[in-house]
Amino acid sequence: MATLGDIGVSAAINILSAFIFLLAFAFLRLQPFNDRVYFPKWYLRNLRTDPTTSGTFVSKFVNLDFRSYIRFLNWMPDALKMPEPALIEHAGLDSAVYLRIYLLGLKIFVPIALLAWSILVPVNWTNSTLEDATKVSNVTASNIDKLSISNIPTGSQRFWSHILMAYAFTFWTCYVLMKEYETVALMRLQFLASEKRRPDQFTVLVRNVPSDPDESTSELVEHFFLVNHPDHYLTHQVVYDANKLDKLVKKKKKLQNWLVYYQNKYTRKSSQRPFMKTGFLGLWGKKVDAIDHHESEVEKLSKEIAVERERITNNPKSIMPAAFVSFKTRWGAAVCAQTQQSKNPTIWLTEWAPEPRDVYWPNLAIPYVSLTVRRLIVAVAFFFLTFFFMIPIAFVQSLATIEGIEKAAPFLKSVIEMSFIKSVIQGFLPGIALKLFLIFLPAILMFMSKFEGFNSLSSLERRSASRYYLFNFVNVFLGSIIAGSAFEQLDTFIHQSASEIPKTIGVAIPMRATFFITYIMVDGWAGIAGEILMLKPLIMYHLKNFFLVKTEKDREEAMDPGSLGFNTGEPRIQFYFLLGLVYATVTPIILPFIIIFFGLAYVVFRHQIINVYNQDYESAAAFWPDVHGRVISALVISQVLLMGLMSTKEAAQSTPFLIALPILTIWFSRFCKGRYEAAFVIYPLQEAMMKDTLERAKEPNLNLKGYLQNTYLHPVFKASEDEEDDEINDDKWENESVIVPTKRQSRRNTPAASKISGASSPPSLPEAVQELPQP
Amino acid sequence: MATLGDIGVSAAINILSAFIFLLAFAFLRLQPFNDRVYFPKWYLRNLRTDPTTSGTFVSKFVNLDFRSYIRFLNWMPDALKMPEPALIEHAGLDSAVYLRIYLLGLKIFVPIALLAWSILVPVNWTNSTLEDATKVSNVTASNIDKLSISNIPTGSQRFWSHILMAYAFTFWTCYVLMKEYETVALMRLQFLASEKRRPDQFTVLVRNVPSDPDESTSELVEHFFLVNHPDHYLTHQVVYDANKLDKLVKKKKKLQNWLVYYQNKYTRKSSQRPFMKTGFLGLWGKKVDAIDHHESEVEKLSKEIAVERERITNNPKSIMPAAFVSFKTRWGAAVCAQTQQSKNPTIWLTEWAPEPRDVYWPNLAIPYVSLTVRRLIVAVAFFFLTFFFMIPIAFVQSLATIEGIEKAAPFLKSVIEMSFIKSVIQGFLPGIALKLFLIFLPAILMFMSKFEGFNSLSSLERRSASRYYLFNFVNVFLGSIIAGSAFEQLDTFIHQSASEIPKTIGVAIPMRATFFITYIMVDGWAGIAGEILMLKPLIMYHLKNFFLVKTEKDREEAMDPGSLGFNTGEPRIQFYFLLGLVYATVTPIILPFIIIFFGLAYVVFRHQIINVYNQDYESAAAFWPDVHGRVISALVISQVLLMGLMSTKEAAQSTPFLIALPILTIWFSRFCKGRYEAAFVIYPLQEAMMKDTLERAKEPNLNLKGYLQNTYLHPVFKASEDEEDDEINDDKWENESVIVPTKRQSRRNTPAASKISGASSPPSLPEAVQELPQP
Repeated sequence: MATLGDIGVSAAINILSAFIFLLAFAFLRLQPFNDRVYFPKWYLRNLRTDPTTSGTFVSKFVNLDFRSYIRFLNWMPDALKMPEPALIEHAGLDSAVYLRIYLLGLKIFVPIALLAWSILVPVNWTNSTLEDATKVSNVTASNIDKLSISNIPTGSQRFWSHILMAYAFTFWTCYVLMKEYETVALMRLQFLASEKRRPDQFTVLVRNVPSDPDESTSELVEHFFLVNHPDHYLTHQVVYDANKLDKLVKKKKKLQNWLVYYQNKYTRKSSQRPFMKTGFLGLWGKKVDAIDHHESEVEKLSKEIAVERERITNNPKSIMPAAFVSFKTRWGAAVCAQTQQSKNPTIWLTEWAPEPRDVYWPNLAIPYVSLTVRRLIVAVAFFFLTFFFMIPIAFVQSLATIEGIEKAAPFLKSVIEMSFIKSVIQGFLPGIALKLFLIFLPAILMFMSKFEGFNSLSSLERRSASRYYLFNFVNVFLGSIIAGSAFEQLDTFIHQSASEIPKTIGVAIPMRATFFITYIMVDGWAGIAGEILMLKPLIMYHLKNFFLVKTEKDREEAMDPGSLGFNTGEPRIQFYFLLGLVYATVTPIILPFIIIFFGLAYVVFRHQIINVYNQDYESAAAFWPDVHGRVISALVISQVLLMGLMSTKEAAQSTPFLIALPILTIWFSRFCKGRYEAAFVIYPLQEAMMKDTLERAKEPNLNLKGYLQNTYLHPVFKASEDEEDDEINDDKWENESVIVPTKRQSRRNTPAASKISGASSPPSLPEAVQELPQP
Repeated sequence: MATLGDIGVSAAINILSAFIFLLAFAFLRLQPFNDRVYFPKWYLRNLRTDPTTSGTFVSKFVNLDFRSYIRFLNWMPDALKMPEPALIEHAGLDSAVYLRIYLLGLKIFVPIALLAWSILVPVNWTNSTLEDATKVSNVTASNIDKLSISNIPTGSQRFWSHILMAYAFTFWTCYVLMKEYETVALMRLQFLASEKRRPDQFTVLVRNVPSDPDESTSELVEHFFLVNHPDHYLTHQVVYDANKLDKLVKKKKKLQNWLVYYQNKYTRKSSQRPFMKTGFLGLWGKKVDAIDHHESEVEKLSKEIAVERERITNNPKSIMPAAFVSFKTRWGAAVCAQTQQSKNPTIWLTEWAPEPRDVYWPNLAIPYVSLTVRRLIVAVAFFFLTFFFMIPIAFVQSLATIEGIEKAAPFLKSVIEMSFIKSVIQGFLPGIALKLFLIFLPAILMFMSKFEGFNSLSSLERRSASRYYLFNFVNVFLGSIIAGSAFEQLDTFIHQSASEIPKTIGVAIPMRATFFITYIMVDGWAGIAGEILMLKPLIMYHLKNFFLVKTEKDREEAMDPGSLGFNTGEPRIQFYFLLGLVYATVTPIILPFIIIFFGLAYVVFRHQIINVYNQDYESAAAFWPDVHGRVISALVISQVLLMGLMSTKEAAQSTPFLIALPILTIWFSRFCKGRYEAAFVIYPLQEAMMKDTLERAKEPNLNLKGYLQNTYLHPVFKASEDEEDDEINDDKWENESVIVPTKRQSRRNTPAASKISGASSPPSLPEAVQELPQP
């Protein structure tokens, strides 16, 4: 058990490293040549231009104004200065509400910490149980344990103060949660109401369109909605299976990057044409002129793309059984999205269309039965991932020993017998296997969500986040409290009685407090401070800038602002809520550490959101019910564990008082669900009607059909349009909008995507990740 | 443990009593003066007239045609003869589908029984474990146990046959369940589609109308729906708080019954005017002329009713914050019922209006917050009712001892010291307390559901049924398997490990087989045969007929056909499903007894539905998802218990094979839920649009507003209308329908109920239970 001194050393190290990170950041961000790494958001919004365009050559790269170094922590007040409405305007509601999670942490834990320190700490301190125990049996107890519940003798009446505090903490947490839910719901509704016209307000995603021998999908969709929503149906866009085309376009993009790289190389050293080998990784094969080779390859791909595009638009089989149906009014769309269309509840499934940026295209065609089977498979897979993930890792680790490698690859024997390499393998490889798994975990969870068939990025991230939280809970929280793998825990729990499980965990909780304090300092303090440095984007930007960038546009593409990463970030915050709530009554000394985490992270992420991150989509805070639900579950967990701990302390008469807490909390969560959740799921008709009426009054001659025409087009089609035929398309819109939408014959052979020319000029994907060529 | 002989005796007794019941029924139903008791359905449908109107005096009361007695079991083929479509036409879909539950039992258990008897019984029989045990330790094993799983030695490979059978039974049950779900869903949709125009197709129930200082509820509702459903809103009816009026009307009805009784008495013995005392139960007080007294009382009440009616219609406070809103089309109503109206999800709650007969009026005004609190209270109360119901009963039982009574009422001492009375008290009273509780249990559960705030009779019955099933499961099923009260079980389970609980129950299951066989014979054979006798209605009818009946109409009201009683009947059937599925692999000898129950009950209830029961409402089989879900849960319970039993038999390697079963079953249930449940909850737009279009084509000039005008009126208003001003109302309808519904001013002061005259003539409640005067 760590003493106060140990904690102090650990704190010093972590504070120092956090301080170094912040200092490095303060230095790096002032250098003009890093400007696009630390302020990409402003470039994307066209509110900032390169500082490199004026001044001397040196000042293009290095900031020589020494006064600016003195105020190196200035970014902190700057980050806090921007008021919330401006922040919403600047970065979207998702980001603004994400920051409120940190604020929620502060709001919950600052009063709890004050109360706990003024009541529980004195109550715990003024006992001598641990001192007595130390005298009797040589057990060393640290000062930290003297402040915790362990210092109170079994059967003491002092436990009533803990029970009372558990009630106070629960009520305070619920109160703050409810207030916050209310505020966020209001913010969301205001955001939706104040929003400008958006295509997803008028559009519904229809899935599982049945197949019909006589009609094409497009005709069928039009028929169906003309019949069943006659006064409201406006137009629709079918969904093409463009996954192959997407792959080709991405490949072409990569080749073009290489071409640019070789061209740059040639211009720099104009004497020498660059050569390359055609084989694997350029290591062997025929030696060819790199520029010519890439030009011909790009040419070939362009033709392939043209053929593929032709195939998609002409082949009815490439149309997926899904469509985006648009309505004349928001009211019509709201009605269609919320109602069931067909007798058979597995066809003609309607739901709100996600924002166009938010659509996850590959999943749109999954049929109903397949969806339920996928859900079962993923549920079972996730169960095994959570409880048995140590088994394959242990297997890899056993392979990664000296003997394992020697057996698998005898020819390497002489190399690995060298003592240096031997020690590296023995000391390093087993750890790496686990670390690699944990690095890939978010990707694995995201893959599961994708396999499960969600059709918007936001829902994919939300589902991954909840899985990540569960994994963390089982493997980090329970795994740290009870030593042993998750599978061993599971085995223990199955063979233990229902009342025994909370006891087993509850008893171990006070003993692990120092471990979690260290964890908070490493992950929550130094980790967050490291976040702001943005090391990976910094390096990537400079590499790209050096090898690839020719034009201003290229430089813009070289910026990689990243986004908040809800699927990993939110579960991480939730883990601190869990720690805080569990330890609030048991070892309140942990609370200040958590409060510092919330405060620091709030400032850092506010800065990042204002200056760096660029969200891929805007879901208008649709994730809040998840956040709320997880805090509630942390609360219930803390109450059950406290019950377990209390019953071992022979304060058994406390159980009836404590059992009411989880019941009330669960009831509170259901109450909140009924009261507020609808605001995050449904678009009320009153709201829709109001916006429709307003719009009709303000813009009576709006050409809505033109506005909606091509919004839900696979980005691979859109990208090419952006480049080549912007004007042609505008013309087409106007021609199209003359046609009365209900005359079916006139539109029979002009489904949305046929308007895309099959030209072969290079498309560009603004949001696609650019591949860095390997030199 | 009972031997085959004991079971045989029990079977003989029960078969005999069942036979006597059937014989008595066959005799009684042939007597003309019982005709209205055994064939009320036909009278209600006006398809049968009194057989008493012709023939000699004696043949009015007694059937003298001896040939008819010979064919005394003829009603059985008669009951089976009516084809299902005719049955639906005759008795409604609810009843027809209710019968299918018994058929479902036959479909599931007949093949399972055949399979179990041809495979499991030989496998079990050809062991000698029990015989050996008997020889060694004087344990007596009956022949029944030799047929059960107990006869197989621990660790035997023969258990694989049981595991295999568990799979076969699960797949067969799931297959039958799915087919049945599909059939019932189809039947429901066909029923709804073929249905004639019904007011609930056009109407939506709006709850939690917010209060407004400037407008009345009626105006507010009209405004809101004119704005938010402008093309579809037709009219609305506000809901009056008529609970007090209802009470007055019922009281008057009762007094009128007394009046009739005294008048009849007077006509019979015309010499003597009947007198009565005004005090409690007519035991003391002033002696008055009974007829005069009742006439004046009725007169007084009539005036009170008139005043109350006036008060309701003129006082805005008696309008509840709820309304029935009707739409021009089914499409409009379907849209409104399925969508959210307001930003605040706790006001303007819309749902399908129940059928007018089905509305439970007192609950319409409960606000949202109150609803959630009530739900919590009822959940906690039900938990205590289930697990602690023995405590108050034990208390009453302790009072009901000799000493308890002597302490409470010392003056009775001399009476109860008499040996006969003493033995009655000691032997009888404790049992009566429990019996009384069990008799009142359905009423208690129904009260809970009412308190919880459901607003239709059908949903009240469904909720009560699921509570009753749970209560039965805990107290009858678990209570019989593990001796001890439910509270003791709960205590054991909390202190036992999760894997230990199924073992504890699983081990006890084979030992209780004989008990459940006896239970099935008493409750399922003799009980069902007793059902058909209808003793209570028979006695009540003849008493009423003698004392009250003057006119043909009175005689009609004296019939009490009753209804199916879903809230008690369905859980009872489900208990047999549970027994059958649990014992199918363990003691297959129980299966034939269950099959006989299902067969007998099917015939009996088919007869009752055709000839007797008169349903209060028609929910179009909305209960089927509940039935399906409970069979699924019985299946899962049976699988878990089998796992527990197997693991004690040292067939531990079976666990991985068995654990897949509940997972697959639960997944199957979720699949079915997604696939079929919507048909029971939602009215698809396609369907609505089709019916609307058809109707417009067939009846272009339909006066829908007139049709819907007064359908959703509290029955207490309706009853009075039926009697006095039918014609006036018809006139009013036609006048009303001329007014264009969207002109608000013209209708401002004519809310629906103001058309009801405040006249004081005696109202009659056709469905109200008539109180029998106490002589």
